[in-house]
Amino acid sequence: MSQSIQQQIIDLELSALERWNHGDPYGYLALSSKNVIYIDPFFAHQLVGIDALKDYYDSIKGKIHVERYEFISPRVQVIDNIAVLSFNLTSYCKDLVYKWHCTEIYQLIEQWQIIHTHWSLIK
Amino acid sequence: MSQSIQQQIIDLELSALERWNHGDPYGYLALSSKNVIYIDPFFAHQLVGIDALKDYYDSIKGKIHVERYEFISPRVQVIDNIAVLSFNLTSYCKDLVYKWHCTEIYQLIEQWQIIHTHWSLIK
Repeated sequence: MSQSIQQQIIDLELSALERWNHGDPYGYLALSSKNVIYIDPFFAHQLVGIDALKDYYDSIKGKIHVERYEFISPRVQVIDNIAVLSFNLTSYCKDLVYKWHCTEIYQLIEQWQIIHTHWSLIK
Repeated sequence: MSQSIQQQIIDLELSALERWNHGDPYGYLALSSKNVIYIDPFFAHQLVGIDALKDYYDSIKGKIHVERYEFISPRVQVIDNIAVLSFNLTSYCKDLVYKWHCTEIYQLIEQWQIIHTHWSLIK
Protein backbone atom coordinates (compact mmCIF):
# COMPACT_ATOMS: atom_id res chain seq x y z
CA MET A 1 0.00 0.00 0.00
CA SER A 2 1.60 3.26 -1.05
CA GLN A 3 1.91 6.09 1.42
CA SER A 4 0.15 9.35 0.74
CA ILE A 5 2.37 12.21 -0.42
CA GLN A 6 1.40 13.99 2.78
CA GLN A 7 2.79 11.18 4.91
CA GLN A 8 5.93 10.81 2.78
CA ILE A 9 6.71 14.50 3.23
CA ILE A 10 6.06 14.43 6.97
CA ASP A 11 8.27 11.35 7.34
CA LEU A 12 11.12 13.01 5.42
CA GLU A 13 10.87 16.13 7.57
CA LEU A 14 10.76 14.19 10.83
CA SER A 15 13.76 12.08 9.94
CA ALA A 16 15.79 15.24 9.21
CA LEU A 17 14.43 16.92 12.33
CA GLU A 18 15.40 14.00 14.56
CA ARG A 19 18.98 14.27 13.31
CA TRP A 20 18.90 18.08 13.71
CA ASN A 21 17.79 17.69 17.32
CA HIS A 22 20.90 15.61 18.02
CA GLY A 23 23.35 18.12 16.58
CA ASP A 24 23.34 16.72 13.03
CA PRO A 25 22.12 19.18 10.39
CA TYR A 26 23.12 16.97 7.44
CA GLY A 27 19.78 15.25 7.16
CA TYR A 28 18.41 18.62 6.09
CA LEU A 29 21.40 19.23 3.84
CA ALA A 30 20.85 15.91 2.06
CA LEU A 31 17.19 16.78 1.51
CA SER A 32 17.87 20.27 0.13
CA SER A 33 18.16 21.07 -3.55
CA LYS A 34 21.04 22.83 -5.27
CA ASN A 35 19.08 26.09 -5.55
CA VAL A 36 17.48 26.02 -2.11
CA ILE A 37 16.54 29.27 -0.39
CA TYR A 38 16.79 29.19 3.41
CA ILE A 39 15.25 31.73 5.81
CA ASP A 40 15.40 31.89 9.58
CA PRO A 41 15.11 34.74 12.11
CA PHE A 42 18.84 34.88 12.83
CA PHE A 43 19.74 35.85 9.27
CA ALA A 44 18.81 39.28 7.93
CA HIS A 45 18.58 37.94 4.38
CA GLN A 46 17.91 34.69 2.58
CA LEU A 47 20.65 32.11 2.29
CA VAL A 48 20.75 31.21 -1.39
CA GLY A 49 22.01 27.91 -2.72
CA ILE A 50 23.23 24.68 -1.21
CA ASP A 51 26.79 25.96 -0.66
CA ALA A 52 25.60 28.79 1.58
CA LEU A 53 23.39 26.36 3.46
CA LYS A 54 26.25 23.89 3.89
CA ASP A 55 28.50 26.64 5.31
CA TYR A 56 25.81 27.48 7.84
CA TYR A 57 25.18 23.87 8.78
CA ASP A 58 28.92 23.22 9.11
CA SER A 59 29.06 26.12 11.59
CA ILE A 60 26.41 24.65 13.89
CA LYS A 61 27.02 20.92 13.71
CA GLY A 62 27.18 19.40 17.18
CA LYS A 63 25.80 22.53 18.83
CA ILE A 64 22.06 21.86 18.97
CA HIS A 65 20.62 19.44 21.48
CA VAL A 66 16.88 19.33 21.74
CA GLU A 67 15.72 17.11 24.58
CA ARG A 68 12.15 16.75 23.40
CA TYR A 69 9.85 18.38 20.92
CA GLU A 70 6.25 18.64 19.86
CA PHE A 71 5.52 18.51 16.13
CA ILE A 72 2.19 20.30 15.85
CA SER A 73 -0.54 20.62 13.22
CA PRO A 74 1.39 19.57 10.12
CA ARG A 75 -0.38 20.47 6.88
CA VAL A 76 0.72 19.55 3.38
CA GLN A 77 -0.58 21.38 0.31
CA VAL A 78 0.14 19.32 -2.82
CA ILE A 79 0.14 20.92 -6.29
CA ASP A 80 1.46 18.60 -8.99
CA ASN A 81 5.10 17.94 -8.10
CA ILE A 82 5.23 20.54 -5.32
CA ALA A 83 4.34 19.85 -1.68
CA VAL A 84 4.18 22.69 0.85
CA LEU A 85 4.57 21.46 4.41
CA SER A 86 3.82 23.79 7.29
CA PHE A 87 3.83 22.97 10.97
CA ASN A 88 4.51 24.33 14.43
CA LEU A 89 7.35 23.03 16.52
CA THR A 90 8.00 23.42 20.21
CA SER A 91 11.58 22.53 21.14
CA TYR A 92 12.77 22.02 24.70
CA CYS A 93 16.49 22.62 25.27
CA LYS A 94 17.43 22.52 28.96
CA ASP A 95 15.65 25.54 30.46
CA LEU A 96 14.70 27.10 27.14
CA VAL A 97 11.57 26.56 25.11
CA TYR A 98 11.40 27.66 21.48
CA LYS A 99 8.14 27.93 19.60
CA TRP A 100 8.52 27.83 15.83
CA HIS A 101 6.55 28.15 12.67
CA CYS A 102 8.00 26.32 9.71
CA THR A 103 7.24 26.22 6.00
CA GLU A 104 9.10 23.72 3.83
CA ILE A 105 8.55 23.62 0.08
CA TYR A 106 9.40 20.26 -1.44
CA GLN A 107 9.71 19.56 -5.16
CA LEU A 108 9.70 16.05 -6.63
CA ILE A 109 12.86 15.86 -8.78
CA GLU A 110 13.38 12.09 -8.98
CA GLN A 111 13.06 12.30 -5.19
CA TRP A 112 11.49 14.91 -2.92
CA GLN A 113 13.87 17.81 -2.32
CA ILE A 114 13.49 20.98 -0.26
CA ILE A 115 13.65 24.06 -2.47
CA HIS A 116 12.65 26.62 0.17
CA THR A 117 12.78 26.64 3.98
CA HIS A 118 11.33 29.32 6.25
CA TRP A 119 11.71 28.99 10.04
CA SER A 120 10.35 31.68 12.30
CA LEU A 121 9.69 32.33 15.97
CA ILE A 122 6.20 32.76 17.37
CA LYS A 123 5.79 35.86 19.52
CA MET B 1 6.59 42.73 -24.66
CA SER B 2 5.45 40.31 -21.98
CA GLN B 3 6.66 40.74 -18.45
CA SER B 4 8.65 37.99 -16.84
CA ILE B 5 6.80 35.87 -14.31
CA GLN B 6 9.23 37.20 -11.72
CA GLN B 7 8.21 40.78 -12.42
CA GLN B 8 4.49 39.95 -12.55
CA ILE B 9 4.69 38.35 -9.10
CA ILE B 10 6.66 41.23 -7.61
CA ASP B 11 4.18 43.74 -9.08
CA LEU B 12 1.22 41.83 -7.61
CA GLU B 13 2.87 41.71 -4.21
CA LEU B 14 3.80 45.40 -4.23
CA SER B 15 0.31 46.50 -5.21
CA ALA B 16 -1.17 44.52 -2.30
CA LEU B 17 1.57 45.76 0.03
CA GLU B 18 0.94 49.41 -0.87
CA ARG B 19 -2.72 48.97 0.10
CA TRP B 20 -1.74 47.10 3.27
CA ASN B 21 0.55 49.96 4.29
CA HIS B 22 -2.44 52.32 4.11
CA GLY B 23 -4.70 50.24 6.34
CA ASP B 24 -6.28 48.23 3.52
CA PRO B 25 -5.67 44.46 3.78
CA TYR B 26 -8.12 43.59 0.99
CA GLY B 27 -5.55 43.68 -1.77
CA TYR B 28 -4.02 40.62 -0.12
CA LEU B 29 -7.43 39.09 0.42
CA ALA B 30 -8.27 39.45 -3.28
CA LEU B 31 -4.99 37.78 -4.21
CA SER B 32 -5.42 34.83 -1.85
CA SER B 33 -6.89 31.49 -2.85
CA LYS B 34 -9.78 29.69 -1.19
CA ASN B 35 -7.47 27.22 0.54
CA VAL B 36 -4.75 29.67 1.53
CA ILE B 37 -2.60 29.01 4.57
CA TYR B 38 -1.42 32.13 6.42
CA ILE B 39 1.37 32.30 9.01
CA ASP B 40 2.66 35.24 11.00
CA PRO B 41 4.45 35.56 14.36
CA PHE B 42 1.36 36.79 16.21
CA PHE B 43 -0.58 33.58 15.61
CA ALA B 44 0.45 30.39 17.37
CA HIS B 45 -0.93 28.27 14.51
CA GLN B 46 -1.64 28.56 10.81
CA LEU B 47 -4.76 30.35 9.66
CA VAL B 48 -6.39 27.94 7.22
CA GLY B 49 -8.71 29.03 4.44
CA ILE B 50 -9.90 32.32 3.04
CA ASP B 51 -12.66 32.75 5.64
CA ALA B 52 -10.18 32.67 8.53
CA LEU B 53 -7.96 35.11 6.66
CA LYS B 54 -10.88 37.44 5.98
CA ASP B 55 -11.85 37.45 9.67
CA TYR B 56 -8.29 38.45 10.55
CA TYR B 57 -8.10 41.13 7.88
CA ASP B 58 -11.50 42.52 8.93
CA SER B 59 -10.12 42.87 12.47
CA ILE B 60 -7.15 45.01 11.40
CA LYS B 61 -8.52 47.12 8.56
CA GLY B 62 -7.68 50.78 9.07
CA LYS B 63 -5.19 50.02 11.83
CA ILE B 64 -1.89 49.78 9.97
CA HIS B 65 -0.12 52.86 8.71
CA VAL B 66 3.34 52.38 7.35
CA GLU B 67 5.01 55.66 6.50
CA ARG B 68 7.72 54.22 4.33
CA TYR B 69 9.22 50.85 3.59
CA GLU B 70 12.14 49.13 1.95
CA PHE B 71 11.39 46.09 -0.21
CA ILE B 72 14.66 44.18 -0.15
CA SER B 73 16.22 41.34 -2.18
CA PRO B 74 13.10 39.85 -3.76
CA ARG B 75 13.67 36.41 -5.26
CA VAL B 76 11.19 34.38 -7.27
CA GLN B 77 11.59 30.63 -7.75
CA VAL B 78 9.37 29.45 -10.61
CA ILE B 79 8.38 25.79 -10.97
CA ASP B 80 5.73 25.21 -13.63
CA ASN B 81 2.62 27.03 -12.37
CA ILE B 82 4.07 27.80 -8.93
CA ALA B 83 6.08 30.91 -8.07
CA VAL B 84 7.73 31.27 -4.67
CA LEU B 85 8.47 34.89 -3.82
CA SER B 86 10.69 35.70 -0.87
CA PHE B 87 11.89 39.11 0.25
CA ASN B 88 12.82 41.23 3.24
CA LEU B 89 10.77 44.19 4.25
CA THR B 90 11.64 47.04 6.57
CA SER B 91 8.56 49.00 7.63
CA TYR B 92 8.71 52.37 9.36
CA CYS B 93 5.66 53.22 11.50
CA LYS B 94 6.15 56.40 13.52
CA ASP B 95 8.94 55.52 15.96
CA LEU B 96 8.88 51.79 15.30
CA VAL B 97 10.86 49.86 12.74
CA TYR B 98 9.88 46.31 11.82
CA LYS B 99 12.18 44.00 9.92
CA TRP B 100 10.43 41.14 8.19
CA HIS B 101 11.09 38.04 6.20
CA CYS B 102 8.30 37.01 3.86
CA THR B 103 7.60 33.97 1.73
CA GLU B 104 4.58 34.04 -0.59
CA ILE B 105 3.68 31.00 -2.67
CA TYR B 106 1.67 31.88 -5.75
CA GLN B 107 -0.15 29.38 -7.96
CA LEU B 108 -1.39 30.20 -11.46
CA ILE B 109 -5.09 29.25 -11.46
CA GLU B 110 -6.41 31.34 -14.35
CA GLN B 111 -4.65 34.16 -12.51
CA TRP B 112 -1.85 34.17 -9.94
CA GLN B 113 -3.19 33.47 -6.46
CA ILE B 114 -1.45 33.23 -3.10
CA ILE B 115 -1.79 29.73 -1.64
CA HIS B 116 0.61 30.19 1.28
CA THR B 117 1.90 33.24 3.17
CA HIS B 118 4.61 33.22 5.85
CA TRP B 119 5.59 36.51 7.52
CA SER B 120 8.23 36.51 10.25
CA LEU B 121 10.32 38.93 12.27
CA ILE B 122 14.07 39.09 11.97
CA LYS B 123 15.89 38.93 15.32
